[in-house]
Parts: sequence; C-alpha cells; structure tokens
Amino acid sequence: MAETGGLFGAEIRDEFQLSKELVHLNHGSFGSVPRSVYEARLERMKELEICPDDWFRYNFVLLVTKGSETVSKLIGSSSSENVVFVENATGGITAALRSLGLKMQSKAGLLVTGLSYEAIRHTAHKVCEIEGHFVLHTINLDPPYKDKFEVVQRYRDYLSSHSDVHVAIVDHITSPSTLLLPVKEIVSVCHEFGVAVIIDGAHAPGQVEINVEDINAEFYTGKSCSFFLYFIVNYVFGLKVISGT
Amino acid sequence: MAETGGLFGAEIRDEFQLSKELVHLNHGSFGSVPRSVYEARLERMKELEICPDDWFRYNFVLLVTKGSETVSKLIGSSSSENVVFVENATGGITAALRSLGLKMQSKAGLLVTGLSYEAIRHTAHKVCEIEGHFVLHTINLDPPYKDKFEVVQRYRDYLSSHSDVHVAIVDHITSPSTLLLPVKEIVSVCHEFGVAVIIDGAHAPGQVEINVEDINAEFYTGKSCSFFLYFIVNYVFGLKVISGT
Repeated sequence: MAETGGLFGAEIRDEFQLSKELVHLNHGSFGSVPRSVYEARLERMKELEICPDDWFRYNFVLLVTKGSETVSKLIGSSSSENVVFVENATGGITAALRSLGLKMQSKAGLLVTGLSYEAIRHTAHKVCEIEGHFVLHTINLDPPYKDKFEVVQRYRDYLSSHSDVHVAIVDHITSPSTLLLPVKEIVSVCHEFGVAVIIDGAHAPGQVEINVEDINAEFYTGKSCSFFLYFIVNYVFGLKVISGT
Repeated sequence: MAETGGLFGAEIRDEFQLSKELVHLNHGSFGSVPRSVYEARLERMKELEICPDDWFRYNFVLLVTKGSETVSKLIGSSSSENVVFVENATGGITAALRSLGLKMQSKAGLLVTGLSYEAIRHTAHKVCEIEGHFVLHTINLDPPYKDKFEVVQRYRDYLSSHSDVHVAIVDHITSPSTLLLPVKEIVSVCHEFGVAVIIDGAHAPGQVEINVEDINAEFYTGKSCSFFLYFIVNYVFGLKVISGT
C-alpha cells in the first residue's frame, strides 16, 4: 500500500496488467493483483522449484508468519496470532462455524440475513443440516432504512423475540446489494443478547478502514492481499455458546 | 508425458529447475514440476491478470474440462465426468467420506489400516467423532507377508469377523512405509462383504500403471499433474452403504 502512495483509479492503472481494451468493474468477484505482488509471487514460485523441500518446510512458514503480521497491522489486530490465512471468505466462515459448532452442547439458533452472500447461506444451511449443531434463522434486512440505527434496531427486535439465537453471521458490505452495515453497533447489540458474531468482510478491506478490535466480533473474515480469518482468542467467555444453553 | 519420451532420472534432469547443488529425494512430500508445466502455468497466470472476469467464467471451465479429460485417460477412466480436481489427496478422501456419510442411515464401521497416512487417520477419526456417521476400525497390515495373497487374506479375516464395516480406506502405495498393496484384489474381497472402498493413491500415479476401472474401487484419489478424485457414478448400488444396515 505504501508503494502506491495512496493513489487510486487512473493514477495507478499501470500498476495492473488488466487489458487496456476493457474496463474491469467486477472487482468483487475476480480481481487482478498489482505488478509488485505478481512479481513477488513469481520469485516465490521460482524459489519453490529450486528446492521444494526447504521451501515448504522453512521458507513457507516464515512467509506466512510475515504475511500474518502485515495483515494483522492492516486490520488493527494487536497480535498476528489472531490472524490465519484461509482459502477464501466462505472458507473462513466455515472454519468459524465449525469451531463454534464443536463447543455446542445442544442445538442453537444461527442467524443469517436475507442479504447474506449466497454461498454463505448455503454453508449455514449445510452446517445446520449435516452437523446438527444449529437451527437456521434469517433476519430481514431489506432496505429502505432511514439510518443505520434502524438496522441495529431490527437486530434488537429479532434477538428480543428469538432467545435461542447463539451465533450471527453479519456482512460488513453486503454482496451483491452493496450496503455498508454498521457492524460495530450490530456486534454490540448481539453481545447484549449473548450472541457470538462472525463478520463476513469479503468486500470490506481496501474499501473501508478496518479495525477488528474496535468492531469486537468473535470472528472477522476478509480479503487483504490474501484471504484471512481474524478471531478473538478465548472468544467464548460470557457468550451463550460456552454453555450451549 | 509424451514430451519426455518415457525418460527417467538423469536423462530428464534438465527438465526440472531443481538446484544442481542438491539431490532431491523426497518427491513424496514436495515436488518440482517439469519446465513445460511451469511455463504453461505462467501463461495461464498472465491471461488471468489481463482479464480476470473472462478467465474465471470461461477459460477456467474449459481448462478444467480439458484437464479432467487428460487425467481421465491417464488413469483408465472411460469418462472424464467421473474425475474431479481436489486440493490434495487428503481433501479427496474427505470429499469421498463426507459424500458417503450423507447416505448413512445409522452408524457404520469405517476401516483404515495401521499403515494409513497420518493425515488420513486423523481425517477418519474426525469424521467419526464430529459427524457421527462412522465408527473407526483399524486393520493390522504390518509386514512381513509371504506374498500379496496374505494381505488379501487379512482383509477377508477382518471383514468376516466385523460385519459392521461398510467403508474401507486402502492405500495404493503406503506412506511412509512404501508398500505396494494389491488394491484390485482387496477391492474384490471388500465388495464380497458389501464394503465400499476409497483408494488413497497419493503416491501411485507415475510410479505404477493405474487403471481405475480395473481396480473398481468406489473412489480413487491421487496425483497426476494435479490432485484428482475419481469416483464411480451411482457407486452405492449393491453395497451396504445404500441402506445403512
């Protein structure tokens, strides 16, 4: 990020190999990487070919450690030990759900939204169906809202009347409806009701400032250089999931 | 494979970028790819950067289709529709186990061997523990054996006295003990007892000729250019797993 000096759009167009014949709009689905990242990747690939055994046993571990430190700083985590790399944001949500599921002693409500990304709704559905730890709930977040407090109020209303909800998956920026949700305030309401929160931040880093410690969700998954999953160590204290009640 | 003309060892040493300073022995854990494969990969990477949306939506699908046709021929599958790519051999076994697990109506025995790869034993253990579809069994395949028939006889003896076994995971070449198991004969005995078979062929393609239709296991996972999982479509007919009894 330092290398582009905070430039955007046409000013850093040449930093990408994207064809000049087209205007690439769909950065949400598929993207291009800066030339500096692309070239660093070629160097790593070459190193791997020269001595694969060394590379996977030693270099790789160092690179992952360095990478998690970099991401950790970008997202406001005080320790890189709370950050791991995952294959994609959906994989991050799955890892979070399955680690929570292991702690359940009885079935509990899992709350998604009507605007959740389709793959995440499928994942939530499958986790409920196959693993049997959760029962699926869906909150209606369809616009319009007057302001962000109305979204937060919908959560308060829903959780007031559904005390079996233990875990909520909340988008930071919804896809494809592109709404920026007030995640910090939603987490705060969820915690009032003892509900653990997993934030799907697939589209947020790079578009909005992220401070995972300020947001205070139990899990935050997103993409910044590479897909990551941030988690609060010992996150279950004080939340319903610890006792499964 | 055509390009190397069936050459091995020193004769195709230059086809790999491995350092001349070392003798790379551990091809089982980590490997290097031929220069032609490496260069083809660079071309695909470049194409992706130029137009990511097109690449993932169209080129990728064509490449995967072409790749599964190539792998299909290499492993003796009559249709490329029985071949999918997986992240690694362990991922292939997990996919097979979970798809079988979905068909179970009650708990059933899952048979691994004392020589199974450690990650596979962990996977089997976790599938038993978390998903609750299976109960873990372990057959002792420790050498010595007089001949391959003795290995097959151990399976016959085990299955005769453990009628609750429904699924067996069998290595083609064991790791790290490097025994070539008579998989075709083991599959045949398993089928006599109504047991579905998943072959872990992580180390087999390229070392021994593979003909998955001749082996006739319900699943075969291995590495050949890329990791793959072969499966028999509608494999459950006639086997215990269909009824869960």
